[in-house]
Amino acid sequence: MKEVMAVIRMNKVNQTKEGLAKEGFFSLNCRKVLGRGKKKVNYELIQDIISGGDVSSPAVAESLSEGHRLIPKRLISMIVKDADVKKVVDAIIDINKTGHAGDGKIFVMPVFDSVRVRTGENGEEAI
Amino acid sequence: MKEVMAVIRMNKVNQTKEGLAKEGFFSLNCRKVLGRGKKKVNYELIQDIISGGDVSSPAVAESLSEGHRLIPKRLISMIVKDADVKKVVDAIIDINKTGHAGDGKIFVMPVFDSVRVRTGENGEEAI
Amino acid sequence: MKEVMAVIRMNKVNQTKEGLAKEGFFSLNCRKVLGRGKKKVNYELIQDIISGGDVSSPAVAESLSEGHRLIPKRLISMIVKDADVKKVVDAIIDINKTGHAGDGKIFVMPVFDSVRVRTGENGEEAI
Repeated sequence: MKEVMAVIRMNKVNQTKEGLAKEGFFSLNCRKVLGRGKKKVNYELIQDIISGGDVSSPAVAESLSEGHRLIPKRLISMIVKDADVKKVVDAIIDINKTGHAGDGKIFVMPVFDSVRVRTGENGEEAI
Repeated sequence: MKEVMAVIRMNKVNQTKEGLAKEGFFSLNCRKVLGRGKKKVNYELIQDIISGGDVSSPAVAESLSEGHRLIPKRLISMIVKDADVKKVVDAIIDINKTGHAGDGKIFVMPVFDSVRVRTGENGEEAI
Repeated sequence: MKEVMAVIRMNKVNQTKEGLAKEGFFSLNCRKVLGRGKKKVNYELIQDIISGGDVSSPAVAESLSEGHRLIPKRLISMIVKDADVKKVVDAIIDINKTGHAGDGKIFVMPVFDSVRVRTGENGEEAI
């Protein structure tokens, strides 16, 4: 068993839910998160400002604020059988890949056990 | 060490907190999540509509919307010693089992290490 | 790869983000959680009340309500290389250690894999 956690764009949640359901994956949960990726301050732009560039351009403003800004994202989490991890990861990539920075990340985490509260069943039966 | 994560009904959070405290488990954290279980669209009901059944019945409406609906839940997370996992899981089941769909799921995740910020202690001492 | 999850005070989030960025760790996500630590009801205070102590003191009120109260916290989560875990944990402790109860906890969780949605790269390349 594995937990597949995907941090994706807010506007991709419904499509992702539908796409996963089509592949047979219904159980999931979803949370709001604030995230920051690897994007760093663009020092060329800053150099540009120092040498008299246009400070008011949106690119400059965005670059300067980037270091501290956390962007609202959705974290979708699913518990799946080991054999299904690739299928789920591929489905999430298919739906969320736009080719632009901010498409998101998928993390696969080990799961020790899973228990259904109603019946007490555990293991893969309880996924 | 393990993380015990339980996705439970919103109205069971206080009882669960109290029940776990009674068993000696105080440290926990709690988050809002939106969740969806395995419940699928009921195709018999849809067939019924196609053949002229009552489209306005709540059962039909609920069944049709189910595929897209995420239900607000609470996720309770606790880090416990390996030896305490069964006790904690059993306590959560005891409190949250109503016998109806939606009672929730418990996931047990491996934990590599735990550190108390105030003292820097780590391992089971820091749980 | 490991996930470093830190439950910290709300007013330490910005400092922690900045401190981690200074050390070269940019990617993170942040969620609201409600948490409760190990603090238990102070029975000496209760004994004090029974023997006629001042019931209206804030210490007494806080102690009595503590068992049920969940305190808003922030959970910061980062996925880092095994070799960077110590550096990240030490940076979080440095920034968040005040010496008072409530400084928070850090949990280190195993990660099975990591995938960048935009490119499909996985493993440490995708952190």
